[in-house]
Amino acid sequence: MNINDNTAVLLMHCPDQPGILATVTEFINQHKGNIIYLDQYVNREEKIFFMRVEWQLDFFQIPKEKIAEYFQTLIGIRYNMTFKLYFADTKPRMAIFVSKMPHCLYDLLARYAAGEWRVDIPLIISNHPDMENVAKRFDIPYYYFPITRENKEEQEARELELLAKNDITFCVLARYMQVLSDNFINHYPNHIINIHHSFLPAFAGAKPYHAAHERGVKLIGATSHYVTAELDAGPIIVQDVTRITHKDTVSDLIKKGRDLEKIVLSQAVEKHIDRKVLAYRNRTIVFQ
Amino acid sequence: MNINDNTAVLLMHCPDQPGILATVTEFINQHKGNIIYLDQYVNREEKIFFMRVEWQLDFFQIPKEKIAEYFQTLIGIRYNMTFKLYFADTKPRMAIFVSKMPHCLYDLLARYAAGEWRVDIPLIISNHPDMENVAKRFDIPYYYFPITRENKEEQEARELELLAKNDITFCVLARYMQVLSDNFINHYPNHIINIHHSFLPAFAGAKPYHAAHERGVKLIGATSHYVTAELDAGPIIVQDVTRITHKDTVSDLIKKGRDLEKIVLSQAVEKHIDRKVLAYRNRTIVFQ
Amino acid sequence: MNINDNTAVLLMHCPDQPGILATVTEFINQHKGNIIYLDQYVNREEKIFFMRVEWQLDFFQIPKEKIAEYFQTLIGIRYNMTFKLYFADTKPRMAIFVSKMPHCLYDLLARYAAGEWRVDIPLIISNHPDMENVAKRFDIPYYYFPITRENKEEQEARELELLAKNDITFCVLARYMQVLSDNFINHYPNHIINIHHSFLPAFAGAKPYHAAHERGVKLIGATSHYVTAELDAGPIIVQDVTRITHKDTVSDLIKKGRDLEKIVLSQAVEKHIDRKVLAYRNRTIVFQ
Amino acid sequence: MNINDNTAVLLMHCPDQPGILATVTEFINQHKGNIIYLDQYVNREEKIFFMRVEWQLDFFQIPKEKIAEYFQTLIGIRYNMTFKLYFADTKPRMAIFVSKMPHCLYDLLARYAAGEWRVDIPLIISNHPDMENVAKRFDIPYYYFPITRENKEEQEARELELLAKNDITFCVLARYMQVLSDNFINHYPNHIINIHHSFLPAFAGAKPYHAAHERGVKLIGATSHYVTAELDAGPIIVQDVTRITHKDTVSDLIKKGRDLEKIVLSQAVEKHIDRKVLAYRNRTIVFQ
Repeated sequence: MNINDNTAVLLMHCPDQPGILATVTEFINQHKGNIIYLDQYVNREEKIFFMRVEWQLDFFQIPKEKIAEYFQTLIGIRYNMTFKLYFADTKPRMAIFVSKMPHCLYDLLARYAAGEWRVDIPLIISNHPDMENVAKRFDIPYYYFPITRENKEEQEARELELLAKNDITFCVLARYMQVLSDNFINHYPNHIINIHHSFLPAFAGAKPYHAAHERGVKLIGATSHYVTAELDAGPIIVQDVTRITHKDTVSDLIKKGRDLEKIVLSQAVEKHIDRKVLAYRNRTIVFQ
Repeated sequence: MNINDNTAVLLMHCPDQPGILATVTEFINQHKGNIIYLDQYVNREEKIFFMRVEWQLDFFQIPKEKIAEYFQTLIGIRYNMTFKLYFADTKPRMAIFVSKMPHCLYDLLARYAAGEWRVDIPLIISNHPDMENVAKRFDIPYYYFPITRENKEEQEARELELLAKNDITFCVLARYMQVLSDNFINHYPNHIINIHHSFLPAFAGAKPYHAAHERGVKLIGATSHYVTAELDAGPIIVQDVTRITHKDTVSDLIKKGRDLEKIVLSQAVEKHIDRKVLAYRNRTIVFQ
Repeated sequence: MNINDNTAVLLMHCPDQPGILATVTEFINQHKGNIIYLDQYVNREEKIFFMRVEWQLDFFQIPKEKIAEYFQTLIGIRYNMTFKLYFADTKPRMAIFVSKMPHCLYDLLARYAAGEWRVDIPLIISNHPDMENVAKRFDIPYYYFPITRENKEEQEARELELLAKNDITFCVLARYMQVLSDNFINHYPNHIINIHHSFLPAFAGAKPYHAAHERGVKLIGATSHYVTAELDAGPIIVQDVTRITHKDTVSDLIKKGRDLEKIVLSQAVEKHIDRKVLAYRNRTIVFQ
Repeated sequence: MNINDNTAVLLMHCPDQPGILATVTEFINQHKGNIIYLDQYVNREEKIFFMRVEWQLDFFQIPKEKIAEYFQTLIGIRYNMTFKLYFADTKPRMAIFVSKMPHCLYDLLARYAAGEWRVDIPLIISNHPDMENVAKRFDIPYYYFPITRENKEEQEARELELLAKNDITFCVLARYMQVLSDNFINHYPNHIINIHHSFLPAFAGAKPYHAAHERGVKLIGATSHYVTAELDAGPIIVQDVTRITHKDTVSDLIKKGRDLEKIVLSQAVEKHIDRKVLAYRNRTIVFQ
């Protein structure tokens, strides 16, 4: 095992008060954990303290399986904390949803195949058969669930079953052009990442490049966000834009947008894999 | 007179058909004009041809005051052209409207005072007295027109009179926090430039930084556009964005936004002064 | 055949004088060619006229195989033009050179496989065996030429033979970590595209991310350029940068740089495929 | 006094070891200081811990004038710290050096006059008389020191005397086209901010826009940095770039560069005023 793999990551927030940071870092130091990363942020308007701290476990005196319990008993209760504890050697398991466009899919799979990410991708789900050949190139099982108004509930139930069976921890919609039901979303709150091809909140909904062209904007954008019940309105993780001119047709926007979409989606997926995103209300804290 | 000052600028559009560009450039060459700039663009969806061409008049055989007439008779009618002819030695005359924030105002006046622009700024209009001291630093007359619901029509009439008396050709709203009436706007169609502190069409209307913060976007923007009857919906000239994080409060956004606003507004003003913007329907062609 | 495929592209430059643009466009119109794209640029310091014009051949009265000759005879000689004529239905043939890093390779191949580009990629060449599995995923022949100081001349001769046999028109160095000999480069002048992982001319040569970190810059960049005899000094096609902070280690720079490198390389390749790059002296004109 | 004014800012670094952060935050909390800002960074390669912490003094039990001593005795010695302590209500005093170009000067003065910065600007120094009219607009004393090879040492001595008399804490070179002597620089180590009109280390020295044009780059940049004995080689504070094309002449670069220069310089000055820059060896830590 790589020495860096043996770390714990704590993502937490609680009402702000003096001494939280000192208490948590002392807890780790005292028990011989070596902090290798700490990023904290205080929302002073709402008086909430947020922190991500990562430490090496090699000489940590509390056994891995007891850390969450001890932390909760000794510190969490006192500060009324909401926290999650992760271990770097437990990889998240990611399902990709795709429809007919390959650019985001290729970008995700290329990074995965190149070993850039500490993640498993056991399967790809689609409402169309078109991308199966891409899945095959990367030897990843491809499940085709055609969706109609009539069968949607039933098909989503089958998808959820498949995800559960494969211990999927989060889903990535790589230009998946099918709205998920509230029921589906509720199985993965803040664990479904979508890429929308505009700088939200502008041009939410269908055909944003057409709308952008019609409006005559001079920039187009892409937004990755967690999926919530309200369409294109969930917590934003990453956004970026690129410059366009009056010369660009809708086709040009679609083409220029592809590079934005794939990079913006992959950046969000990477932050999620690294447990660096904390969704709070309808916003995200993205630790560095 | 600087040799480059003695030029004519033609901004035109017409239904596209073969030969327009050759015809216009021949017209200029044939009469001994020397083309120093040409940028054209064909909107192939709507089949419209747009062009900006600038040529030296030193040896041009048609007298300045006759060029528009000759061009219309010999070429304009044949191609059903809409065109405007400008001369570089006729400076546009610009009025600045401002309320209480100085950053855009300073940026405009500093460029003006430094001689960066070929423009006259005979006056500044405001609905508040606060910025008079800035106007004084630059020795520009400052007119204070307090606006209430009751006196708005009357005050705007006085403003229009003042603008007319000073031969103002276009207006710049440098964070002028007062909506202009349709009547006012109709006196300067596509000749009033506003800066809105968001990447439109997101966050139109009041308090865009508050709305951006509330939505949790990762970029904030600024948009300069021509003012039309519908609020924040006119043809966009320049847009830009800057990156923000969860750490930025509304005050931080306001502060980061100031640099965006002033640069985006001044870039639009410069393009307008250089007669490089052509508004068509609700979009702009911005020539290079 | 798609109607848009039947077009001719003319890339040209010549000493500037009045009337060139009119003459060329008349030549095309007169013979019933329909111009669908025109971008011109005059370098006024050196008095050189550059143009890219593309027109539909469906009703063009000069046969394809005669156009170059007629153009040269009727116009080229008169204006002392240097020009190249391409046909959209003749695809360029591209060879990829790669060493051990997959990110640029994947990005090129994903676009190719997705049909984004009008190009053929008959083969991949490498000085290492590592990337063969990527080539296999995309069913592209992979040729492994290990290079040592002793065998370099001989191996390059074999590579050139292979390129010739496959009618390769241009080469793309997708993080190929081996300097090509002058002899090799001379076989493909301005037809070998390299990606260098810095904003040239800063940090030319080896280990630019280490050098950038050492210098403490706040931006890192990537540069795609044509390869010339002088290392990292050829005509630049595309450059871009991304923001970094003091927190970024060399490993972070390498990681952030990967996205830059692949996008900047692919953008240059696309411009080259579309015959929109004209190298002149040590610079490029990149038509829109 | 504004409540936020009564704060202390500690900028520090020391060899990294467990517990520093906890010790410092405890020191502040224990003595009833309320931390309103904390940003830390560990350079893991060189094992150095850096931190900026700001806390309210209203109920802090150690008197202002004793804090540095207590901190050094109780904590600094133990951790072998290098630190500086500032108080928000003690404004830095800034001298501007300028030659003939007004754009950076105007931008600095406009922010100052608008009250954006917590700074005093008691004087402007120049080696030319040209900018005196700008200084007058803002009612700031302007000192003209013409520099020749012969009188440089003497003139610099007079400048240093003037700076000392005015309690100047840092200098800003707003396009000051005169190299300072090592002796001068040694009076203000890491307290002289320069703006260089390129993305350093590319195009150091004279005429960077000419060099950028000659090289054919597709981006131009600006770099603000602390001045050190080696020209254009000091610790970089802020950098930014803007996109250019083959169409841009040297004059266009100069024009486009102006906006970059003024924003990049002002951003660095602001960070310095806010005591958010810590120079370490030849790099900077720029706290958020």
